[in-house]
Amino acid sequence: MKNIYLLGATGSIGRQTLEIVDKYPEEFKVITLSARKRINDLIDLIEKYNPKFCSVETKEDADNLADRFPDIIFGYGKSSLIHAATFQPKDSEGILINALVGIAGLHPTIEAIKIKRNILLANKETLVVGGDLVMSLAKQNSVSVYPIDSEHSAIWQCLQNGKKEEVSKIIITASGGAFRNKSFEELKNVTKEDALKHPNWSMGEKITIDSATMMNKGFEVIEAIHLFDLLPNQIETIIHPESIIHSMVEYIDHSIIAQLSSHDMRLPIQYAMFYPNRKDSMVSSIDFKKLSSLHFETLKEDNYPCFRLAMESIQKGQSMPCVLNAANEAAVDLFLNEKIAFLDIPKMIEVEMKNHVLIQSPTLEDLLRIDSEVKERIYLNH
Amino acid sequence: MKNIYLLGATGSIGRQTLEIVDKYPEEFKVITLSARKRINDLIDLIEKYNPKFCSVETKEDADNLADRFPDIIFGYGKSSLIHAATFQPKDSEGILINALVGIAGLHPTIEAIKIKRNILLANKETLVVGGDLVMSLAKQNSVSVYPIDSEHSAIWQCLQNGKKEEVSKIIITASGGAFRNKSFEELKNVTKEDALKHPNWSMGEKITIDSATMMNKGFEVIEAIHLFDLLPNQIETIIHPESIIHSMVEYIDHSIIAQLSSHDMRLPIQYAMFYPNRKDSMVSSIDFKKLSSLHFETLKEDNYPCFRLAMESIQKGQSMPCVLNAANEAAVDLFLNEKIAFLDIPKMIEVEMKNHVLIQSPTLEDLLRIDSEVKERIYLNH
Repeated sequence: MKNIYLLGATGSIGRQTLEIVDKYPEEFKVITLSARKRINDLIDLIEKYNPKFCSVETKEDADNLADRFPDIIFGYGKSSLIHAATFQPKDSEGILINALVGIAGLHPTIEAIKIKRNILLANKETLVVGGDLVMSLAKQNSVSVYPIDSEHSAIWQCLQNGKKEEVSKIIITASGGAFRNKSFEELKNVTKEDALKHPNWSMGEKITIDSATMMNKGFEVIEAIHLFDLLPNQIETIIHPESIIHSMVEYIDHSIIAQLSSHDMRLPIQYAMFYPNRKDSMVSSIDFKKLSSLHFETLKEDNYPCFRLAMESIQKGQSMPCVLNAANEAAVDLFLNEKIAFLDIPKMIEVEMKNHVLIQSPTLEDLLRIDSEVKERIYLNH
Repeated sequence: MKNIYLLGATGSIGRQTLEIVDKYPEEFKVITLSARKRINDLIDLIEKYNPKFCSVETKEDADNLADRFPDIIFGYGKSSLIHAATFQPKDSEGILINALVGIAGLHPTIEAIKIKRNILLANKETLVVGGDLVMSLAKQNSVSVYPIDSEHSAIWQCLQNGKKEEVSKIIITASGGAFRNKSFEELKNVTKEDALKHPNWSMGEKITIDSATMMNKGFEVIEAIHLFDLLPNQIETIIHPESIIHSMVEYIDHSIIAQLSSHDMRLPIQYAMFYPNRKDSMVSSIDFKKLSSLHFETLKEDNYPCFRLAMESIQKGQSMPCVLNAANEAAVDLFLNEKIAFLDIPKMIEVEMKNHVLIQSPTLEDLLRIDSEVKERIYLNH
């Protein structure tokens, strides 16, 4: 039985993680949970899983919960996320499942690595912002960082068909998001509602907007570079509207290995939870008799300035992806609050990146400071 | 450096095998070669590779060649194929590449296994006819049997992504052959020339007809059952006209791993020759920017009676696939000689299968006798 330390328990990935725990109750024990504001949902989870520690956002919620569940410890704020990630620090067999959204995921990951706890990572910002830092720390501590993401899970699986030095390139597929068939002109007037209609996946709002701008795909390329120790030019992105092939690996003999499955995040979650084993899943099987075709298109980079900016940021490396992410996080928030237009998102990011003076080998403190500064600057102007 | 014992050197697979030897001359040394009638081609190969032993069909050719190349030993007829396969019997590091066509490939494979020589198998009949016998002998002698065939190579590669007990099914793809878009009615009048137009692959005549009837796919299913120790119901066949996905493996978590590559037999040949390593290849890379789509269709079994008969034969097992193969070999030969119509091929096979009394655990002698009897009966009537 593996102990689970779950950050972001009430979000989409968190809930699906718990579905797998429910299917395999003899395999996993939930030790800590975090939730920000969905306190009623958290209460349900506490009653069901009886964790030892929970993290919430506010002191008030923590106090109320402590009154209601006297046997459970409650913490609040950022430090409590670290506490949830590193609870029972001697338990290096346990796994941190980091399903937080945003840069909040970075610090808990780092602290969990320091206590040699393996990481299952759904939080993109951990690697986008702190990839160099996190992966070198993981190496030092002999900690595994496993992706929870359909694309990276696909790459991970397909990398098992050869040695690292036999890989010629990675082909990441992209659905193209909500606006694949729009011209750049048409993008000027798209609304929040338009952007939230993802063709294949039902996800949180932030990531759905990131899919529409293709920033999400840019993040995934950056993550893949860190996770699998690749060079930026080893990764190709192609549009594959059906999102059935989740990614591919081409080897030096020009054999390509692809991973295919239904649109169901429970597969990459479960794969990471059971790796190196596979288990029966709740994910539906693909019926090739019904699936009549799979399509591929070139990525029109002109339509996706956010993707281009992400590629620029990883070419520059160092602190630049942190700026990319911070500016994107703030800009998407403004767009979701209907304060700016869709195409203002890349504009704002571009301004921040242009003005940024690179910091070599940034520390966690550097990254968090840059993140705050960029976001403050963007919010101040709106 | 690995020694190569190559049967069927002047055929399509044989020639492509030698292209790989040419690309990696420091890795392979050709020790024996066999050719049936293409003596001029064989002479070119002898001059280039300077083998120690060659097998040809007739005594006359063997004698003439022996005069011309006094340092090389020549044999003729069936026993010389066995001699070529087992030459230098102590060399268990060497590999037999069996690219013979027809049942002639069975006996040499068995003898090579007995001297513990690993087998790279392009000859389908070895496993279709003698699968149980060959694979149990291989197990006893700790010999590996590696497929040279795009579908089985794909399955082999995709099976590396999980444990055997984690496999839920194999999905073999089929181009549908020359007649995918024809109705059963239209098949009545197709000519030899029509049948020889394979949409994707340029191959020998026999296998091209087997592709048009889908007997080839039936054979592949039977081979896969033996090679990978599967049950018939673990294999699904789907039509995939582009032949880019060469086959897939579905695991119990419903993750599917697929292998994709250009239509180039040098990939599966090279993969088997270098396994477990991969090397740069002459095979062209797939450009997903040009490859706009991949299609899938249900296999219309009514149109492919040969495929249905193959499935029936493997369900019955024992000596039945031998009857299937022998009847098919004779019938296809008659069709290629324009003695019978296209749809007579399955009719003849069906008659032979109906009349056959199963022999349990047939020996090599049983199989060769059945093969002769079936073929004689068919030729006698034409």
